[in-house]
Amino acid sequence: MSAYEELERLLKRISVLGDANALLYWDYEVMMPPGEQDRRTNEMAVLSEFAHELFTSDQVGALLERATAEALTPEQRDVVKITKRRYDRQRRVPASLVKEMSATATRAELAWKKAREENDFASFAPHLRRVIELAKRYAQAIDATAPIYQTLLQDYDEGATIDETATLLSHIAQGIKDLIRPGPDRPGSEPLPPYDVPVEKQRQFNEWLARQIGYDFTKGRLDTGVHPMTMAFGRITTRYTDGWLLSLYSTIHEAGHAMYEHNLDPAWHGTPLGQASNLAIHESQSRLLENEFGKSDAFISFLYPRLKESYAIPFTEEQVRAELRAIRPGTIRVNADEVTYNLHVILRFELERRIFADQLAVEELPAAWNDRFEELFGFRPPNDKEGVLQDTHWSGGAFGYFPTYVKGSAFAAQQYEAIKRAMPDIEEDFSRGDTTRLRAWLREHIHRHGDLYLLNELAEKATGKPLTADSYLHYLHERYG
Amino acid sequence: MSAYEELERLLKRISVLGDANALLYWDYEVMMPPGEQDRRTNEMAVLSEFAHELFTSDQVGALLERATAEALTPEQRDVVKITKRRYDRQRRVPASLVKEMSATATRAELAWKKAREENDFASFAPHLRRVIELAKRYAQAIDATAPIYQTLLQDYDEGATIDETATLLSHIAQGIKDLIRPGPDRPGSEPLPPYDVPVEKQRQFNEWLARQIGYDFTKGRLDTGVHPMTMAFGRITTRYTDGWLLSLYSTIHEAGHAMYEHNLDPAWHGTPLGQASNLAIHESQSRLLENEFGKSDAFISFLYPRLKESYAIPFTEEQVRAELRAIRPGTIRVNADEVTYNLHVILRFELERRIFADQLAVEELPAAWNDRFEELFGFRPPNDKEGVLQDTHWSGGAFGYFPTYVKGSAFAAQQYEAIKRAMPDIEEDFSRGDTTRLRAWLREHIHRHGDLYLLNELAEKATGKPLTADSYLHYLHERYG
Repeated sequence: MSAYEELERLLKRISVLGDANALLYWDYEVMMPPGEQDRRTNEMAVLSEFAHELFTSDQVGALLERATAEALTPEQRDVVKITKRRYDRQRRVPASLVKEMSATATRAELAWKKAREENDFASFAPHLRRVIELAKRYAQAIDATAPIYQTLLQDYDEGATIDETATLLSHIAQGIKDLIRPGPDRPGSEPLPPYDVPVEKQRQFNEWLARQIGYDFTKGRLDTGVHPMTMAFGRITTRYTDGWLLSLYSTIHEAGHAMYEHNLDPAWHGTPLGQASNLAIHESQSRLLENEFGKSDAFISFLYPRLKESYAIPFTEEQVRAELRAIRPGTIRVNADEVTYNLHVILRFELERRIFADQLAVEELPAAWNDRFEELFGFRPPNDKEGVLQDTHWSGGAFGYFPTYVKGSAFAAQQYEAIKRAMPDIEEDFSRGDTTRLRAWLREHIHRHGDLYLLNELAEKATGKPLTADSYLHYLHERYG
Repeated sequence: MSAYEELERLLKRISVLGDANALLYWDYEVMMPPGEQDRRTNEMAVLSEFAHELFTSDQVGALLERATAEALTPEQRDVVKITKRRYDRQRRVPASLVKEMSATATRAELAWKKAREENDFASFAPHLRRVIELAKRYAQAIDATAPIYQTLLQDYDEGATIDETATLLSHIAQGIKDLIRPGPDRPGSEPLPPYDVPVEKQRQFNEWLARQIGYDFTKGRLDTGVHPMTMAFGRITTRYTDGWLLSLYSTIHEAGHAMYEHNLDPAWHGTPLGQASNLAIHESQSRLLENEFGKSDAFISFLYPRLKESYAIPFTEEQVRAELRAIRPGTIRVNADEVTYNLHVILRFELERRIFADQLAVEELPAAWNDRFEELFGFRPPNDKEGVLQDTHWSGGAFGYFPTYVKGSAFAAQQYEAIKRAMPDIEEDFSRGDTTRLRAWLREHIHRHGDLYLLNELAEKATGKPLTADSYLHYLHERYG
């Protein structure tokens, strides 16, 4: 067996621990009886530790070394190159630190939950301080010379820099400023009144719709979850607590993530060529399905009569479209509309950047949040529960994650421009609820590459230019201007 | 850290791979989209291989050695003693053989499925020959001096011997001979006519019943499966394709297995003190709940009016009782009644014993099956599909498994005698559907010990004597005589 073959075999073996963990997590979210919680938390931690140990072992290092000297196909060379990059990065992180981060995150998440319920940032502050401290140590272990926050960003978007992220986000912020014109003259400024549809009827309609837009039920499932998510290689969840329209669009969003997972090449699974770990790219797939496709006039014209027939909704197509495209600035990110969502992310990006540049202390966060929020939105959050305490991410140590939401939106728009160049009549498909050609393009230009390319490399390859704000701002102005 | 502490930590870590595999298997049976099959099969094989490698590593051997010399609590000494026994056994099996067995079993199971459908034993024969050959090599690797079949029996019932198994089984065979008097004078000789109950109504009633008899839904779930099973630490399935009564009693049976799992001590999980791997003991728990408890007059008197109310069954209590206690000799083991079930197992035990003593070649199996079946039941199976091809076990290499069904039944009866000695009025509880005292006895005398004792040791401890046929025959004659 060549060193390369041995390496690939080992990588695929290690990836099984990740596969198992993915299923344990899906079960945790969707199926697990509550009494299994402690055992499951331990199981997931042990599997992560195992995988980290095996991947960062001397054996992997030696095989990478030897494989480099072998005659390889271009794909094999890619596997070695990308694996080497990740090996070098992860190997610098001591196992003891990984473990401490995980234990600290578990405690901090509990503290955050309580603090949010009680609107009590002070009780969460010491935990957050500890999580930040560990994140700094983690980033410094990986690269003592790079800016800490940049290293953190790269956990979710390999190759990201602070500067290009800041540039992209501030361009988008500036570009959408004049879109936020709330007022009685704006369509959708009055929310649709609540309308009850039995959950089982909704579930059936969601399942039908997922199948209609190309979600493959031989590879995945649609379940009800507390949060809409895609897990375990394209199993999706939606929730029905936010009403019939949001659950539908959550399903479309998650189906976009899932199709990406389902189109990865199983022959390369366990190697970078068969994985999808850049979250900005992943998010581009869900956003494209949800927004460019799902909120197009063409698709709404397909969806509306079917909704009307199944749910007997007492609303006109115009009302539904206005609801889907409403701009309603609010305090809570996860409830935000497509346009103002970006401002929520920009706020978090700016604060994270300042935290890791030691320009902002934990105790200053609530005030800094509210001040900047007011500048962006024109009003202040009424309390920390609707402000700095609203998201779980920081308690778990996920710093640098938020920008992938905006990058995903921007990349989706850029892809969609390329799609329309290639197929100017693509919206005719949408008016029949047909995504066949759309999916073929995505499979060809995005999905099949797995993790081969960094975000900008893939953008170049798929759309002819690196990622910029242009396409997205153009799309937003077209739809919302 | 003492060697013992390190050992226990390592065992608990290794057991997480088994936990993960258990959940993967549950998902495979209950939730998995069909397109995940190949990937899942590989994942489960890799996790098993990992666990085997880690458990049979030099490190475990060295820790066992060192721990033996340390000052230990009695429980810790037990952990070391039992682990050492299993380590010695498993370490003798080459990893290459484990892998070959698993790959061969996968192929043989596919061939068996096809052969059964087509009633074509000849196409299955070469696969079965190979599986038997590997089972022989496996047993010889473990102990070159012991009879091969005895070593195989011990995979499911540690400490089992061919002789005591043969004695027990033939005592039971003789003892039940005069119970099999089919004929028009026997209650239940006419099956209850089919009666349709909507599956959702059945599911709700099954769930209610499981909860009523003490199944803990904070630790487990009840799902619909192709086969009734207990998996992943007490998650149970039942099926509704066999009618409303069989699905109910499958649920009770599986709930018995599950309560055992749920009562294991989590502090010892991953060590022999927190596991339940003797399948004869496991089966005693399901049989006791299903039969001694579930088919008692007292419980039927509790169940009947509730069934009547929920399902509006057009049958009398007497008819339901007669159906539950019918003796109807047939060709198919899994459809057999409580009494004739034993004959099915005895047939398989005898054939397996002869196979591994080289007294019976694979090509002779169909005729040998039918001949012995006729001696035991008084008629011949019409074809191999209802004869030698009916069970999946041999194709997967599970030789020595079947006797645990009869041992479980016998041990259940012996436990129930001890329970009635301790609580002569226990049936009064049953007439209220109440298993509180029954479960407390089982927890105290069976569940909490995990894998500490061999079957006969546990029988001695819990009931005052090793396992014999006496209690079971007495019970059968009382209920069926």
